[in-house]
Formats: sequence, C-alpha cells, structure tokens
Amino acid sequence: MKEVKVNLGNRSYPIYIGSDLIANTQAYENLIKTDQVLVVTDSNIEPMYLTGVLKALNSFDADSYILPPGEDQKNLTNLNNIITELLTRRFSRTGCLVALGGGVVGDLTGFVAACYQRGIQFLQVPTTLLAQVDSSVGGKTAVNHPMGKNMIGAFHQPCGVLADVGVLKSLPDREYKAGIAEVIKYGLIRDPEFFVWLEDNIDALLELQPQALEYAIERSCINKAQVVAEDETEKGVRAILNLGHTFGHAIETGLEYSSWLHGEAVGLGMTMASYMSHLMGWLSEEDHGRIVKLIQRAGLPDKLPTQLQDVDLRELMSVDKKVSHGRLKLVLLKSIGEAVVTDTFDEDVIARTINTYR
Amino acid sequence: MKEVKVNLGNRSYPIYIGSDLIANTQAYENLIKTDQVLVVTDSNIEPMYLTGVLKALNSFDADSYILPPGEDQKNLTNLNNIITELLTRRFSRTGCLVALGGGVVGDLTGFVAACYQRGIQFLQVPTTLLAQVDSSVGGKTAVNHPMGKNMIGAFHQPCGVLADVGVLKSLPDREYKAGIAEVIKYGLIRDPEFFVWLEDNIDALLELQPQALEYAIERSCINKAQVVAEDETEKGVRAILNLGHTFGHAIETGLEYSSWLHGEAVGLGMTMASYMSHLMGWLSEEDHGRIVKLIQRAGLPDKLPTQLQDVDLRELMSVDKKVSHGRLKLVLLKSIGEAVVTDTFDEDVIARTINTYR
Repeated sequence: MKEVKVNLGNRSYPIYIGSDLIANTQAYENLIKTDQVLVVTDSNIEPMYLTGVLKALNSFDADSYILPPGEDQKNLTNLNNIITELLTRRFSRTGCLVALGGGVVGDLTGFVAACYQRGIQFLQVPTTLLAQVDSSVGGKTAVNHPMGKNMIGAFHQPCGVLADVGVLKSLPDREYKAGIAEVIKYGLIRDPEFFVWLEDNIDALLELQPQALEYAIERSCINKAQVVAEDETEKGVRAILNLGHTFGHAIETGLEYSSWLHGEAVGLGMTMASYMSHLMGWLSEEDHGRIVKLIQRAGLPDKLPTQLQDVDLRELMSVDKKVSHGRLKLVLLKSIGEAVVTDTFDEDVIARTINTYR
Repeated sequence: MKEVKVNLGNRSYPIYIGSDLIANTQAYENLIKTDQVLVVTDSNIEPMYLTGVLKALNSFDADSYILPPGEDQKNLTNLNNIITELLTRRFSRTGCLVALGGGVVGDLTGFVAACYQRGIQFLQVPTTLLAQVDSSVGGKTAVNHPMGKNMIGAFHQPCGVLADVGVLKSLPDREYKAGIAEVIKYGLIRDPEFFVWLEDNIDALLELQPQALEYAIERSCINKAQVVAEDETEKGVRAILNLGHTFGHAIETGLEYSSWLHGEAVGLGMTMASYMSHLMGWLSEEDHGRIVKLIQRAGLPDKLPTQLQDVDLRELMSVDKKVSHGRLKLVLLKSIGEAVVTDTFDEDVIARTINTYR
C-alpha cells in the first residue's frame, strides 16, 4: 500500500492507495475517530461494494443511504434529503459520513458534511479513477445549480481517502478513460516527466496493469496534494488544476450535464486549451501535437458534440467560476509541464479555438 | 463611533458601532474591497433603509434583492433563489454581499456567501438589536431544516459589521426586548460586572438612551469577539454562547418557528437554565432570583406558551446540535458570570425544570 499525505496543518490527512482497501477494517479504523457512521453511495455501487464496506465497518454504528446514480443527483434536493436522514437518525456533530462512489457521490456527500450542523467529518472512498486522482482529494465539495456546475459548495477537507485500485476493474470503459484525462492533466500542468511516462505507458494504463495504475494514481495524488497544500482555497496557483475545465464546463452545461462524462469534457477542454496556447504562440506545434495524440490514444473525444453546433459556448464560459472582476480567466500552457492562468487574450483566439473543434 | 475588533488571523474584521452608520459611504468603502455588491434585505427593511444604503454604495456596482420577511424564509429554497439571482447577474467570486436586516437576513445571506462558488465576501449591516450583539458577529451562518433550526450552515466570517444604533428606534418593541435577552446572556456567561451594570441600567436601555445602548452593544460585542477568537468553530468554549438556546430552540421548533421570537425563546431558555442550575446546587436561590427579575424587567416571557402544554420538549431538545455522542450537552451556570457546558445531569432535573415553566 502506498500513502500520500495532504499537508494542511490541522486539516492534514492521508490518501491510501492499494488493493483490497475498500473492505479493509484496519484502514477505516485508522481514519475514522467516532462511533456513528453513515455510508452514502448510489444504486450502481451498492450491489458491488456496500456489503463489504459495512462489514469492514463492523466496529462502528454504521448504516447506509442509497442515491440514484448520475450527475443530475448532485443537487440541493438530495442535500436536503440526506440531511433529513441524518436528523431522523439523530446523527451528531461528531459523526462521520463515508462517500462510497464516484465524483457525484463524493462532491454531494462532502458538501452535506460541510453543511450539516456547520460541518462534520467525512471519509472519501472513491470508486472511479477520476475521483481517485482528482475529486476526492483537496476538499472541493459542491452541488450543481441548473445555471452552472458546482456553483453551490464549500472547501471541506475529508479525514482521509481510500483509493482501491481493484475497484477500477468494474468501471465501464468510458468512465475509466474519462479518469485518464485528469491523470494526463497533472503531466501537462506541472510534471513534464510524468507526461513522458504517460506517453510510454498509456497502453499499460488502458490495460489496467496494476503497477502502472498504482504509480499513475500515486503520482497524480502527489501533484494534487502539493498544489492543494500551497493554495487550499484557490486564491492563486490551485487554479491551474482547472486546465481544460472552463471549456469543459461550458460543454457540460450546454449538454445539461448529460451524455458526456466530466472527464470527457475535460479531455476535449485540454485539447482546446492546448490549441489556444499554440495560437497564443506559447506551445509549439509539435508539443500541441503530442498532447492531442496522447489524449486521442486515451480514447477521449476530439470534437465538440453535434448537439452543441449552434450553442454559444463562449457565453457559457462566462458563467464559469474562474471569472474575476468581469474578466474570464483561462488556464493555458506555456509548455508541457507549465501552466499559466491568464485573463489576457484576444476574443478572436477563443472564437478560432471553438470553431476549430466544432 | 466605537470599533471592536474580532481577531481571527487573516479572517479578522472590525465591528463599527455608532449613529448614522447605515448610510455612511466611508464605512462601506473601508470594509468592501470589490466593485460588485448585492444588498440582500427583506420587504420590512426595504422601505426604511434600502435607498439610503444604495446611495451610500454609490461608488460600487450595487443592486439589491428583496426577501419576504420572517424566520420561515431562512430555507434552502431562498438560498437557491438568491444564487439564481447571482448567477443571472454574473456575480463573480470577488463580489460582496451585504446583509441588511435582522438575524434571518444575516444568517441566510451569510450562508449564501459561504456557498456561492465555494465562498465569497459579505458585510453584515444588522438592523435589530439581537443581530447587532449576537448573530452578525462570529461567522455562524445557516438556514433551517423543518426538523431543526440552523441545521444546514457554515462558519463563514463577514468582512465587517456595521451596527447603527439609530435603526433600533424603528424596531417593534417586542423585537427590541428579544435582543435584550442576548445582551443579558453576556453578563450571565462571562461578565458579572456587566450583569450588575444591566441591573442598574435596564430602564435606560428600555428607553433606548443612546449612550446606554452604545455601551451595551460594545460590551456585548467585546464579549462575543473574545469567545469567538478563542474558539471559532465551537470545539469548546464557544458553546457557552448557547446559554438558554437548547431550551429555546426546542420551544421554537415546537412552535414551528412562529409566534415567538428567537430572543424571547432564549430569554425563557435562560430562565430555565438558571432554574436548572439552581436545582443542580450551583446557583444560589438569590442569584437565580436576580436573573429571573432582570429577564422579567426586560419584558421577556416567563412561562412556556400554551400551545406547548402537551409537547415533549425533552424530545425536541435531543435533535439540538449540542448533542454529542448521543449525550445532550447543556450550558448551565455555576454563578452569575460563569457558564459551564455539561452532559452530566439527571433526566429528572430537566423534567422538573420543564414542568416548572409550563
């Protein structure tokens, strides 16, 4: 088992990465310092893992709450429903939630933990690659608003993360590949050696070779943990983690959070950010080509969905959280391994970028 | 003008206390460091003060959002409605909300500020005595859940508080007296000299004599600021600020947040906590009598409402946030000026206390 530490003073916590962690009693007992536990999961995950998790939580007063699956469940109604459940159970401020699932379950459960009685503990047990390398680490929690993704949320750190690589075998192919997009992101924004490693090992990752997978998750989490430790609440450098996300969120909003996975939108968003960085004269044509190729080899989309042919993506980008003092901020690349956050660019360059990927 | 500082490291902020502050341009310009401002208020406050506030905010890009009045507006639906408004206006993460109103407006607006895009700035402009001495200071924000008050919320500090004593003249008599309950609380929990001052000056306060009022607000805010600085997120000593609140919240929940004001429920709650402290052998009969007398002189209720004759108040107390590991915690008094948080008491003593006030 590997362990990566997220260093945030008295909010520090470990990420455990390994096999068979999800049903490992010791792991839970290390990380949960209370009696009362509620596992929140969805009806896709439940038949696969819930029994094992509850068995591992045998020494706690543990129960579960099952959500329907899907991004559209990440809303205030479910927040309210889970809080009703907690109040019905007399769940106390010292209790601990366990988020067993992908990013939707993690973000929603984390936000419930942030709000319930002004904040209780929670443990992340991510069951998708995307959640293991990205959304479960760093304390971003939120629900969606019909007008924008993650618009209602909080920074609330978990008390730990259990990333079990074994569960990824049961992940649908598309979801797995969507997770690879966020792995590639770490190479692009701050780890050029890791990018080269990914160029050499993308096939091993796509075949789910355990060693490659553990290495990729560990290296991703180390990168994420370092950025989060530097800038927990995204006043500065943390924004580079949003590479591809402003284009990506506009795509997801345009599709009303359906049909494309978050990682797929981010994958194309990174390709678009790469192209825009090339148009700005920062990224060489060759490096842009390497990025496009790696993202394509990962099986991620390389064109905007046909439903968005006539949608004003630029308009949708304006409601993104990265807008500051009325100016849109974008994460772009100076080179492979060096990201920059900028609000200085010609509108024409965005328009050309969007049109190129229609 | 008096100024009290809340010392919380990089989240420190000033409380300004004085006359004509609500329309003072300089005060807003000192405290708001952004262009974009949305004033949230309710339709009772709007005709009295909104025009003046917006005029004072002339140098900002400021607009307003009007809520219906009342405690039942402090809910997730209004949170969502205000966020819809913010998104429609393209309100950015660097914008600032202004909460112009009593505790309901302050708590709801503060929670919107805590959640919108994971946290933006807000300024408290409390227009009730209760909000000036209590709810606007210390960063507790929340909305209610049908099963319990303030069950969904966050600790989110404002960037400043403007307490204008002039606005209290327009406060209905009952609301003003409800605020006195929280003023008395500071004397009871940690400031015996202030309690004596209140015994000597309660009539001046009830007549709204400006000097007495400014002194009482300043002294209340100093007490609150010290407690909050010691324990921002209520892991320990901050809980003493809840004197009378567990009984009080049970009353409010039983009445479904209608007919009694929060301060009225807290006033009777303090009387009940005082009686229970006396039954426990801590508070002398004489001191309990002084407390009862001061709370009565302030015009606060001294009996449970008739609607709650047959309601199980003990049951309602169990869903209070002060429950820890299944044990109810109560704030009681060792003496006037010394509060203690305890989960060690006979159920019989609670039952006798509740029955005495039926």
